[in-house]
Amino acid sequence: MTLSPNLIKEFVAIMGPESVLTEETDRMSYAYDAAVLTPCVPALVVMPATQDQLSATIKLAYANEMPITVRGSGTNLSGAVIPEPGDSLVILTNKLNRILEINEEDLYAVVEPGALTAKFAEAVAAKGLFYPPDPGSQAVSTLGGNVALNAGGLRGLKYGVTKDYLMGLEFFDHDGELVKTGSRTVKCVTGYNLGGLMVSSEGTLGVFSQLIFKLVPPPRASQAMMAVYPKVEGASETVAAIIAAHILPCTLEFLDQKCIRVVEASSKIGLPTEAGAILLIEVDGSHQGGVDEDAAKVKDLCLKCGAGDIRVARDAAEKLKIWEARRNALPSLARARPTTVLEDATVPRSKIPAMVVELNRIADKYKLEMGTFGHAGDGNLHPTILCDRRNHEEFKRVEEAVDEIFDVALRLQGTLSGEHGIGIAKAKWMEKETNRATINFSKRLRQALDPKYLFNAGKKIV
Amino acid sequence: MTLSPNLIKEFVAIMGPESVLTEETDRMSYAYDAAVLTPCVPALVVMPATQDQLSATIKLAYANEMPITVRGSGTNLSGAVIPEPGDSLVILTNKLNRILEINEEDLYAVVEPGALTAKFAEAVAAKGLFYPPDPGSQAVSTLGGNVALNAGGLRGLKYGVTKDYLMGLEFFDHDGELVKTGSRTVKCVTGYNLGGLMVSSEGTLGVFSQLIFKLVPPPRASQAMMAVYPKVEGASETVAAIIAAHILPCTLEFLDQKCIRVVEASSKIGLPTEAGAILLIEVDGSHQGGVDEDAAKVKDLCLKCGAGDIRVARDAAEKLKIWEARRNALPSLARARPTTVLEDATVPRSKIPAMVVELNRIADKYKLEMGTFGHAGDGNLHPTILCDRRNHEEFKRVEEAVDEIFDVALRLQGTLSGEHGIGIAKAKWMEKETNRATINFSKRLRQALDPKYLFNAGKKIV
Repeated sequence: MTLSPNLIKEFVAIMGPESVLTEETDRMSYAYDAAVLTPCVPALVVMPATQDQLSATIKLAYANEMPITVRGSGTNLSGAVIPEPGDSLVILTNKLNRILEINEEDLYAVVEPGALTAKFAEAVAAKGLFYPPDPGSQAVSTLGGNVALNAGGLRGLKYGVTKDYLMGLEFFDHDGELVKTGSRTVKCVTGYNLGGLMVSSEGTLGVFSQLIFKLVPPPRASQAMMAVYPKVEGASETVAAIIAAHILPCTLEFLDQKCIRVVEASSKIGLPTEAGAILLIEVDGSHQGGVDEDAAKVKDLCLKCGAGDIRVARDAAEKLKIWEARRNALPSLARARPTTVLEDATVPRSKIPAMVVELNRIADKYKLEMGTFGHAGDGNLHPTILCDRRNHEEFKRVEEAVDEIFDVALRLQGTLSGEHGIGIAKAKWMEKETNRATINFSKRLRQALDPKYLFNAGKKIV
Repeated sequence: MTLSPNLIKEFVAIMGPESVLTEETDRMSYAYDAAVLTPCVPALVVMPATQDQLSATIKLAYANEMPITVRGSGTNLSGAVIPEPGDSLVILTNKLNRILEINEEDLYAVVEPGALTAKFAEAVAAKGLFYPPDPGSQAVSTLGGNVALNAGGLRGLKYGVTKDYLMGLEFFDHDGELVKTGSRTVKCVTGYNLGGLMVSSEGTLGVFSQLIFKLVPPPRASQAMMAVYPKVEGASETVAAIIAAHILPCTLEFLDQKCIRVVEASSKIGLPTEAGAILLIEVDGSHQGGVDEDAAKVKDLCLKCGAGDIRVARDAAEKLKIWEARRNALPSLARARPTTVLEDATVPRSKIPAMVVELNRIADKYKLEMGTFGHAGDGNLHPTILCDRRNHEEFKRVEEAVDEIFDVALRLQGTLSGEHGIGIAKAKWMEKETNRATINFSKRLRQALDPKYLFNAGKKIV
């Protein structure tokens, strides 16, 4: 640790000693995130509790050329909050976690960036409203992190992702000056759509201080079911058939045989371990009759596409059980081997059958253990490679397989990352999907807004 | 006209003489748009027909320091495509108007920027799908213009605005280099969300070459009605009551007495000219039963809030008649006096009653003839002042009234512009809604992406 004691004193003067972590044991907790990447311990960790403290923190750090990483709960899967080497600063948002307003008349909410996603969704539900984005990490993730990464989730197909709910945003620029964009109104075209720019900017352009989210009326009825397929092809054909029938389920999730078996082995919930794949489907809407009609059509389509068995949830308990299989997919896979490499290359949804075939081919080619689950309705699958990072020979094969997964996704008109972010994990593939001019344009933009390249340097773009 | 003949020859070499308009009589058509502002004749007007021609045009114009204005159909209401004085170039997109792909399996479409909104919506409907944004000028407006201005429309309350449908975008930067952002996938977080930045950037950051839009399944049922109120307050209370009941109509439009009378005088469709206000309401959904239920609830709420009469459309012809009143509002008002000043200050929807009171107060205070109609469900009203610009004394009162309308909208936590754009008409009020740091941030961003300040200079931000 090379920070001058005087500089530390200045941070203490801003927010008090209890909000400035200098001990290495404390700082080590903020060296990594949920991605499988090399950690890096920050020189200092601070926890501003007010907008003024946040502004002063940025001003001081920027003036002293400290690389700045803003961290919510560190649940991202792309290395987006791994600090830079050197005198780097981590700003935690955990004390900036107030829900400032939930407006039932105008269907919006105002929150601070450190508010937890699930807690916020609960507070909104308690007022009879609905905040749809539900990333896998919602129990611990923060809304600021969700905006920085444009977090997705299970409801993307029908309800969209975080960016579809961001109505307004306040953030501090590199001088610690407050920038305001958007509004409490549904429509607003005053000034550049800076909220649109900041969504998924991964902390590289400014530091969020306040977020305004759109809320919607909750669905009044829903129906969940599990469709069991002897062969994986039937499951992927069903996805296309449902969309072709103009039904948008709120969730349409896929688990392949590997996932089914690993989940069943670890949680014993009665999954069909001989099945080639299962689909977990929920339809919802504002009217029971319409939902029943859609559910009946979906059931029909599942059977037509080769489902051998369909289990419809008869009550809330059975519905929970259906979603338990999906919620357990990642934790179960993660327990199977020391290292879990979770990808999110995404393709247009009609390319899901082709993508599943390719993923299995790639797993075979590189002799890897891979389970695939994910948001089939969005074309957003999560091929998950189970391995041991300490086995260098094996991990080299993992890296080659990931390279090939990206190649396939792009060939199928897809994208490197549907929802996990670029961070440092995928920066090197960026040009493959876009082109050099896009990278240069992005660099000019970043240079203008972060002239000393201190905001989460090394992330998002090379 | 001061352009050198050699420079004109270079444009002709790019796209042929028939695509380069040099005659003043031709150029004069592109001196203005739908805003009430001083026109400015461009030095040259060109019509590239291919991506290569568009790229070469930008490169040549930028190298020669020509101010560049890209123009779709010029229907915007904020002066966003009025050319700059000097050797300025207008690029028309009318020859870049192809619908390249409508993908029914993956629910997206790829178009060129000059494609007309209504034609595109029709082509999408012919494939059994739905593109919801419906700005008032949709019959002639272009999709590129819609993205540049983030056009709204009547369906914003339930379906959102143009930005909610932009999945991907390709555009040329100031060097004529192609930048790519977004994807054909529902979820994509690869690189900065440049599509989000370009939406509503009013031609100041680059030149669109290709747009990817999200499509949705169309509603299967709908119900339209007109509610007639003796007093304006009842109409605005109904809006709040409908939202409180968690019903999101696809359209929820308001016309005050002045509008009703002007429309009836010019189109004789049997409107209730003694009414204080009317609401035009349409609910839609995927299921007839649900729509009937919502329509019955809405009818109930209208009556509870004081509607004296409700006319429910029994068939498509009656539905068309209901919407005729709304569609005729602006044309009828515009015919009444030589000059029509149409504003779009927007407030959170619960503030509509307060806004209506304030608008009437302002009209009285400045002794102006004003009719108000608009998207009550979005809080997006269009106070429309009927005047004669040649009457300087009157027009000064108009300008003062507009100033006061903005003050009121901001005091009610609203915004300067819900959907019409900033252009040159509203640039001077920008700082009032945001702050100096926001303007400076926006300027740094613009400076980085348009270093010579040639892309629609003078627009969007001061």
